[in-house]
Amino acid sequence: MIRVKVPATTANIGPGFDSLGIALQLYNIIEVEEINFGLEINVPVEDRMHIETNEHNLVYRAMKRLFEVVDFHPKGLRINLINNIPLARGLGSSAACIAGGLVAANKLLNDPLKKEEIMYLAATMDGHTDNILPALVGGLTVGCLLENEVKYVKMNLPPQLKLLAIIPDFHFSTKKARLLLPQNVPVEEAVFNISRVGLLVASLVTAHFENLSEATKDKIHQPYRKDFIPNWEEITSKLIKIGVKGCFLSGSGPTIMGILDEDYKNIENEMVKFLSHLEQRYKVTVLDVCNQGLEVLNDEGSNGCYR
Amino acid sequence: MIRVKVPATTANIGPGFDSLGIALQLYNIIEVEEINFGLEINVPVEDRMHIETNEHNLVYRAMKRLFEVVDFHPKGLRINLINNIPLARGLGSSAACIAGGLVAANKLLNDPLKKEEIMYLAATMDGHTDNILPALVGGLTVGCLLENEVKYVKMNLPPQLKLLAIIPDFHFSTKKARLLLPQNVPVEEAVFNISRVGLLVASLVTAHFENLSEATKDKIHQPYRKDFIPNWEEITSKLIKIGVKGCFLSGSGPTIMGILDEDYKNIENEMVKFLSHLEQRYKVTVLDVCNQGLEVLNDEGSNGCYR
Repeated sequence: MIRVKVPATTANIGPGFDSLGIALQLYNIIEVEEINFGLEINVPVEDRMHIETNEHNLVYRAMKRLFEVVDFHPKGLRINLINNIPLARGLGSSAACIAGGLVAANKLLNDPLKKEEIMYLAATMDGHTDNILPALVGGLTVGCLLENEVKYVKMNLPPQLKLLAIIPDFHFSTKKARLLLPQNVPVEEAVFNISRVGLLVASLVTAHFENLSEATKDKIHQPYRKDFIPNWEEITSKLIKIGVKGCFLSGSGPTIMGILDEDYKNIENEMVKFLSHLEQRYKVTVLDVCNQGLEVLNDEGSNGCYR
Repeated sequence: MIRVKVPATTANIGPGFDSLGIALQLYNIIEVEEINFGLEINVPVEDRMHIETNEHNLVYRAMKRLFEVVDFHPKGLRINLINNIPLARGLGSSAACIAGGLVAANKLLNDPLKKEEIMYLAATMDGHTDNILPALVGGLTVGCLLENEVKYVKMNLPPQLKLLAIIPDFHFSTKKARLLLPQNVPVEEAVFNISRVGLLVASLVTAHFENLSEATKDKIHQPYRKDFIPNWEEITSKLIKIGVKGCFLSGSGPTIMGILDEDYKNIENEMVKFLSHLEQRYKVTVLDVCNQGLEVLNDEGSNGCYR
């Protein structure tokens, strides 16, 4: 039995559209083993409404993709899924399924593919690197998907940096969110994002958190998506007012993310109170950064990190 | 007598249009003192054709700007200029005059303005932060000019990183270079630059130089300017072919810059040979990164760094 623990991820981080991502300490667990015949996908009762348990299942599709590449034909497969990452909320649940499925399949066959090959397969399946990279290697990642490879850098983030996730109780499809974007943008808006994304990477890595309120600003995707995010203006204004370092739409939403450092408890409590007065229901949770990334858990319960 | 040593700078570094800059170990020296009356600007004989020695001189204008802010009226001024940074070649000669003039004027009055105030004045005079920031603080800088302040991060670069400057023997005005840019760009080209600028900052800071050939790619300004840079395609192709880590148009050009690490001597020699076959004349020089930034030299010749 192969057991893989794969983190949630938040992408874009404001200006870093399709490029930046951060891994979070919130995990899906994927267990896989070869069986004599058939496809058996087990999910907890409460997830049966939302997760497909047939050949359309994304973890299975990722495994199948790897099996095709290495020309392996399993007799049958058992997949057990424990999903803690909420679906279609901008927290990288698809990337977790793809990254986890590929690594699990690779481990099942004693690692025929190298880390870089897995990364490339995962990015092509997801279409981008922004959630896939942090799901695999953890920390803050910047990357781009080229014709035959992924170029990336992973950086550890300081432990005092935390993310406040404000998760509404509805789904928002990434596909729909992409259709909202314009075809062209004024060059000064492109330059706006270019300067902020440079400032953002530099400020996160050097712990210049005082820059983050400016460095998380974006003119490329958030202005076009915010009308579909209930209470965007009220929530982001409130977050800045009560002292978060910066805030942004997590991936393509609908989750709104605030960046915190120490002394986050008051901010969390104040947001819970503030949100309770809105019509839309939200879950609020403070997440630590996962600098480690995906882990393959061994039989003894101790674990080996995915390097 | 106040004596200031201010570095050349290279801006944009490919995708980081108006945002990124690196300070170089090539310096202008500015000496200033108050005299009893008049304006006396001294430049070496060979510079008299190119440098104005009246109230239009840029170092003088920067000093005057600071004097206005602090309401100081000098009886007269003597300014001695030793310019090693070539003019209008994309190597930050204007930014050096502005940064140097402001700091010299501030020193002359015993530092009435803080570093952040100088930075903001300098950026508003130059219109951007990309050359001004590294000229002042050195290293690799990312920054943006806001309504009332400059937000920035400065990072030291590893000493093995060097820049090969290919400097043509003609001037190229920044103003003209800006008129070549389009008003709108396709969103995917904006996203292209966003991902590369993130990758560039991260790769430079973590010394992942193997990423630089991709991370220095740009779709926002170089494609529109390259037709005005003689032999752009031949020179950049040759640079990549003989092993530079990345290459880009320095500022708005016409200097073309290659990024090198160790073992640069062969590359330098090969480029000199290659360029000697072209009609256009070039100067080739390998420049070290100046992590220190502008320095105020004291009377003993030892120096105090601008912090």
